Formats: sequence, C-alpha cells, structure tokens
Amino acid sequence: MSGFVLHPRLAADTAFVADWGLSRVLLMDDARYPWAILVPRRADAMEMFDLDAHDRAALTEEVVHVARTLKAMSGARKINIGALGNLVPQLHIHVVARSEGDAAWPGPVWGHGTAIRYEPARRDAFVEELRARMQGASL
Amino acid sequence: MSGFVLHPRLAADTAFVADWGLSRVLLMDDARYPWAILVPRRADAMEMFDLDAHDRAALTEEVVHVARTLKAMSGARKINIGALGNLVPQLHIHVVARSEGDAAWPGPVWGHGTAIRYEPARRDAFVEELRARMQGASL
Repeated sequence: MSGFVLHPRLAADTAFVADWGLSRVLLMDDARYPWAILVPRRADAMEMFDLDAHDRAALTEEVVHVARTLKAMSGARKINIGALGNLVPQLHIHVVARSEGDAAWPGPVWGHGTAIRYEPARRDAFVEELRARMQGASL
Repeated sequence: MSGFVLHPRLAADTAFVADWGLSRVLLMDDARYPWAILVPRRADAMEMFDLDAHDRAALTEEVVHVARTLKAMSGARKINIGALGNLVPQLHIHVVARSEGDAAWPGPVWGHGTAIRYEPARRDAFVEELRARMQGASL
C-alpha cells in the first residue's frame, strides 16, 4: 500500500467507512442518494488496467459487496456502478443506489446538480449502519 | 448461455463486434465517442451480483481488454466504465474512450445530447479494426 494517498477532492467530498483488503470505502457526502466510493489503495492507479489481475478480481468482489449492501439497505431499484475519473484521476469506483424519482432519475448522478450534504448525525448513523451490515455479511 | 436474448434497445443502438467467453461485445452506434458495450450472455442478469463470482471475474477481464484496446486505438485521455441500467435493465457495461473537448467532456456521456450515427462504411471499418486489435492481443 506504500505511496497511497487519497486524492484531496475525494477526501473533501466523503466520509471514511472502512479499509478493506484492497479498497478504502467511503460514503459520498450527498444525501440525495445512498452512494459509496471505493478507492483501491495502490499508488498511481488511474485505470482498471493499471491494477494487476489479482487486484482487479479483488476490486470486483469489493464493489459487489458494497452494491449488495446498498441495495439491501435502501431497497433501491437499480445499482449504478461507474469508474469515470475525468475530473479526479485517482482510480475510484462509484456505487450508487438509484430509485425512481430520485434527483437525477433516470439519468446518471455524475454532474447532475449540486450535492446536498448530510446533517452530520445522519451521516454518522449511515456510516455506522453501512459498517455493521458489511461486517455482518461475508465478502 | 441458454435463454440469453439481447435487449431490443441494445440491438437497435449498436453493431455486433464479437461473442467472447462470457460477453457479447457491441459497438455503440454513436460517432461522438469510441464506445463499446459488453453484455454478459446470461439470461435475467440485471446487477453485477446476479452473476456468480467466476462470471464476474471473467467480465472484469473482458471489460479491461476492451478498455485497453479503445485506449490504444483512440489515444483517449480517460476510459469511462459504467453499469447503469436505469432504462435498459439487462446487465450491460459501457466502456467509453474520453478525450478533452469531446461532446460531453468532462461530464458523463449517458443522457448527454443525441447519438450521431456512424456513416455505415466508417462504422464497419471501426468494427473491423476493433476485432483485429482485440484478436491480436491476449485477453
């Protein structure tokens, strides 16, 4: 993991949830959608193909674990998964629980409007619930 | 693969490139961006977690193979990968080569403007080049 430093933009926009085998798991501080971000703790990774095959397989399973958890917590209709990085080059994977009638439905959340930050106690409660559910289920 | 039928919306918007071990590989018929779509040939898969772990690992490697190829072909600045499915529920993964100044830069391509279809000879040439490059490189 040497050399890994979270991009300051990601640090500013999220709350810490957990460090897993590969990824740092973050909650996007945007109350409009249940929205997690996974950042592989590898220095200088920008594209999926910058990771080796072992890390890519681990990342896929970590993404799926978060996706399942957000789906169960929110009852969302669809999970959106995205790796864009046009603005923040550090490789990071969005996992967003989408529901009909949410702020951007049926369009993508990226670039849509302005984040509405959580009230801090609500954000902390969400992080705690995410942690508890993800620890309680096998990866 | 029994029971797999490509969603009619995906069929209408794309050109066939190849059937790989898991995925059908398609070219999005939108000349604004080099844009491929991978559809795992599994009936009723809507979310990544509807695939088993073996299929998920295969999908990840197939996505990466397309991503590398589009990057090499286009010299793109960033590859965008997305699994949304808010409108078309059949699981499908977008792999889009993005460049500064393209039609949607730096925003996401999904939901942005209207597709500009390829002139057919250009589309066929693009498909041929994609096929040749992907067959020439190891998965």
